[in-house]
Amino acid sequence: MKRFYNHRDTLVTEGLDGLLRSSVGHHLCRLEGHENIHVVLRRGWDKSKVAIISGGGSGHEPAHAGFVGKGMLTAAVCGALFASPNVDAILAAILEVTGEAGCLLIVKNYTGDRLNFGLAAEQARTLGKNVELVIVADDIALGRGPHARGIAGTVLVQKIAGHLAETGSSLEEVKQAATDAIQSTASIGLALSDVNVYDVEHKTRLNDSEAELGLGIHGEPGAERISVDKLDALVNKAVDTLEKNLTDDKQIIMVNMLGAVPVLEAQAIVDALSRTAFADRIEFIIGPAPMMTSLDMYGFSLSAIPVREDLVEALKSAVEAWAWPGLAPFKGIQTRQTPALPETFSYEPSSDTYVESLITHGAKVLIDNEKDLNALDALIGDGDAGSTFAEASRVILKEIKRLPLASPQHLCETIGRLLARNAGGSSGVLLSIMFATAGQQQDWRTGLEAGLDRMHRYGGASQGDRTMLDALFPAITALQTGNLQQAAKAAREGADATRKMPARAGRAAYVPKEQLKNIPDPGAEAIARLLEGLSNFT
Amino acid sequence: MKRFYNHRDTLVTEGLDGLLRSSVGHHLCRLEGHENIHVVLRRGWDKSKVAIISGGGSGHEPAHAGFVGKGMLTAAVCGALFASPNVDAILAAILEVTGEAGCLLIVKNYTGDRLNFGLAAEQARTLGKNVELVIVADDIALGRGPHARGIAGTVLVQKIAGHLAETGSSLEEVKQAATDAIQSTASIGLALSDVNVYDVEHKTRLNDSEAELGLGIHGEPGAERISVDKLDALVNKAVDTLEKNLTDDKQIIMVNMLGAVPVLEAQAIVDALSRTAFADRIEFIIGPAPMMTSLDMYGFSLSAIPVREDLVEALKSAVEAWAWPGLAPFKGIQTRQTPALPETFSYEPSSDTYVESLITHGAKVLIDNEKDLNALDALIGDGDAGSTFAEASRVILKEIKRLPLASPQHLCETIGRLLARNAGGSSGVLLSIMFATAGQQQDWRTGLEAGLDRMHRYGGASQGDRTMLDALFPAITALQTGNLQQAAKAAREGADATRKMPARAGRAAYVPKEQLKNIPDPGAEAIARLLEGLSNFT
Repeated sequence: MKRFYNHRDTLVTEGLDGLLRSSVGHHLCRLEGHENIHVVLRRGWDKSKVAIISGGGSGHEPAHAGFVGKGMLTAAVCGALFASPNVDAILAAILEVTGEAGCLLIVKNYTGDRLNFGLAAEQARTLGKNVELVIVADDIALGRGPHARGIAGTVLVQKIAGHLAETGSSLEEVKQAATDAIQSTASIGLALSDVNVYDVEHKTRLNDSEAELGLGIHGEPGAERISVDKLDALVNKAVDTLEKNLTDDKQIIMVNMLGAVPVLEAQAIVDALSRTAFADRIEFIIGPAPMMTSLDMYGFSLSAIPVREDLVEALKSAVEAWAWPGLAPFKGIQTRQTPALPETFSYEPSSDTYVESLITHGAKVLIDNEKDLNALDALIGDGDAGSTFAEASRVILKEIKRLPLASPQHLCETIGRLLARNAGGSSGVLLSIMFATAGQQQDWRTGLEAGLDRMHRYGGASQGDRTMLDALFPAITALQTGNLQQAAKAAREGADATRKMPARAGRAAYVPKEQLKNIPDPGAEAIARLLEGLSNFT
Repeated sequence: MKRFYNHRDTLVTEGLDGLLRSSVGHHLCRLEGHENIHVVLRRGWDKSKVAIISGGGSGHEPAHAGFVGKGMLTAAVCGALFASPNVDAILAAILEVTGEAGCLLIVKNYTGDRLNFGLAAEQARTLGKNVELVIVADDIALGRGPHARGIAGTVLVQKIAGHLAETGSSLEEVKQAATDAIQSTASIGLALSDVNVYDVEHKTRLNDSEAELGLGIHGEPGAERISVDKLDALVNKAVDTLEKNLTDDKQIIMVNMLGAVPVLEAQAIVDALSRTAFADRIEFIIGPAPMMTSLDMYGFSLSAIPVREDLVEALKSAVEAWAWPGLAPFKGIQTRQTPALPETFSYEPSSDTYVESLITHGAKVLIDNEKDLNALDALIGDGDAGSTFAEASRVILKEIKRLPLASPQHLCETIGRLLARNAGGSSGVLLSIMFATAGQQQDWRTGLEAGLDRMHRYGGASQGDRTMLDALFPAITALQTGNLQQAAKAAREGADATRKMPARAGRAAYVPKEQLKNIPDPGAEAIARLLEGLSNFT
């Protein structure tokens, strides 16, 4: 078991202190002075409004400390991993935050939490505090009833109670709203893994094709063992179970991640939701986000609460706690038409017999050298250098009648686009960059020179790094004042020089030096052979 | 491999659409019309300011689409999993968002991204757009140099550029600031696992005791294989590597999660950071949060950028993108002293010979029945019912001289506190609740009756659910008008009745019905034996 922790017993303290040190916890403080009391509170709380306290075992982060802040929880009481906090910790929280307006305790339906929060409430009353308590039992995995667990829906209740308290409602009103919310909240979880509570001997109870519907968040078995399936099928299963327990037509859905789900998959779960038959009933969405997690569990849960004006208002308002992902309408995706992309052939074709035969000949040279260059590349790379050049050549040959052959500038621009859309590999893009840049200038010679500079800049290689630049650079420099023969000679010298160069760019950079010895760079060799071929032709 | 997805090839589309449907993506829209173009944009963008575009392969969510929004990115161009987006997609994004003010492309240092973004920039220039491009290479795992990868530090550059663009800086100014930021940003990653890119045959390259320092975010091997260790040791290793590459004294640190790290551990990583020798140099913190992830990789990265007024201002400003976790000072934790908790013995001891002998006798009865009740419980539960009652009795016996025996109300309140702090198990807390509630009333008889009601409310069990309430309820009812003998008789009848009851609360609820047959509930039996013992005594 590889995990980020020092010791199971210190993890809760370190995790809470880490939250308080983090950028998402700078509005928090905690009680100090007792080793077994972990209470996180809003800073600067003046007790003028109803205090909202929640808590329970740790291991469900960001619940509950991550939801402490203006507009949501006043304090969170955190027990050890999956263990209820003790009565003294809860009492300390109540005493610290409760003023004349009183205090509401929001408790998940587990015996330990019910008893400890209940006892703390009784003790606080004895001390003259006005304390009320509500119990959340939103898990409909086994139907409604006294055994229903409190899971992610608890966060909805916290948000609703927090909003009412913040806007000045009385304890009675806040309690009533929380009770109403609890009665109409339903949740269902689905997981591909169970949780490992830092047990090095942990054995999962699920095999590779098993998942659980109606998961527990403390490692207890799920209500039903189901087969692993594609995402859409799994989301449908969860939604079907949830829907049976909903009476109102329109719903707000909260999408909660359990702890180890990649963000991309979390997002995909929301999209899957939009493909269910239930999607029409979803008017608002909250998440996806990790809210009520279970350490490293790979799962999600869906919570539903009806669309009622008071609930939407309470769930929509801004809060200080970063962990709350807000509420938004669940609607179709807003799109914009992709802007018109330049046509590959945006110029009228034009003819120039010399240029056409030069291009045709050059392309044939590269096609003829395909196998040879591949064999060379196989010695030091992935063996496809020849094919990349040959493929680019075939593309150009195929379209040669559509090219503006009479205008060197437009020709360069068009070849750039043709290669961008049709040539593969880094070499294809690099050549495309060279031609696209050349196409920005009227003089094709200086244009090609500018293109070299951009190849260097975007590709990251310099002369001497053992790339095709080592042939292209001297060749194009020679072309500025000289002819093709001179360019070919320069390219050959450049390509030959790569035989002794170390590789500092491209794939060859990862090949041992010895292996490169006396082998030219296939890209540089391709350029040299192309220019040699062309110089023989003219 | 159990994961939430339909198909590897559809995941990116589904994930992006899911983001746009989610509560954290309602400010976004996307381009439509091309299957291979995935561009996410701010809604309502009017091109009046410099546009900031970033992108790259998918699989790093929330990067980059999750950072699109006012104050950060204008658009994100998303490729397939770990593959650069194509040139057309990048060009489409540029054309869609770039106005007179121009556009900055922020690109991570990978050949594919450099080339495709570079070529798109060239094509956009040909079309008259004012486009600049910067390349982020923040990974110092292999030292600075052309091979340095772009990792999480890219998000810092996006935030800085986004702030400048939003506040009206020119393209030149934004580019300069981004370039400066890039030069002073350094990142180092550490992972306990490699990434699985939806390959059912995937074999990890790390064994159970191996981790990687200097991780790649595309599945490439890390720079160094290290031994798994405690969190503090691992964070120290990462920090040491990072620190070697920093010149400025005071730093801003961004704590990024790779994808599969539980929130609690993410928080603990920040706390571990505070215990390093480097902590003194950290003036501000960003995170922890998943920002630049690598699918299901179990790791984190730390990015550093110097504390400079302009950087702090740029990183501090509010943004629309929820994925950005803000910046806050990295300081000690703010604490408040735990409020004084009530003393267990808050009343002067007082004597009452009758009450003292009654309590002493009752305690002995329960201690004498310890083994018997444990044996009974072993048949249907975890076999500790007798010990729980006996332990509570021993606690009371030990402290009997400190009890206010002469005041029934104060006695109940004190016993309630004594049991809350010292008795174990649900039964201990339940009895504590009963006594604590009784202690709120002057008449101990009605007080005990109120206590029963609270036991029912907090414990969740009703009469007939096979719990100690089935003996306590008739006994306390009898006590309201009758004597101990009558109470004992009622308790015995109640306890006997549990032999035929189904279990609906407590641990026995999970035991098969057949197994419970003719066995009384151990809690009810304990109450009956206690009262029978007391009635014999008087």
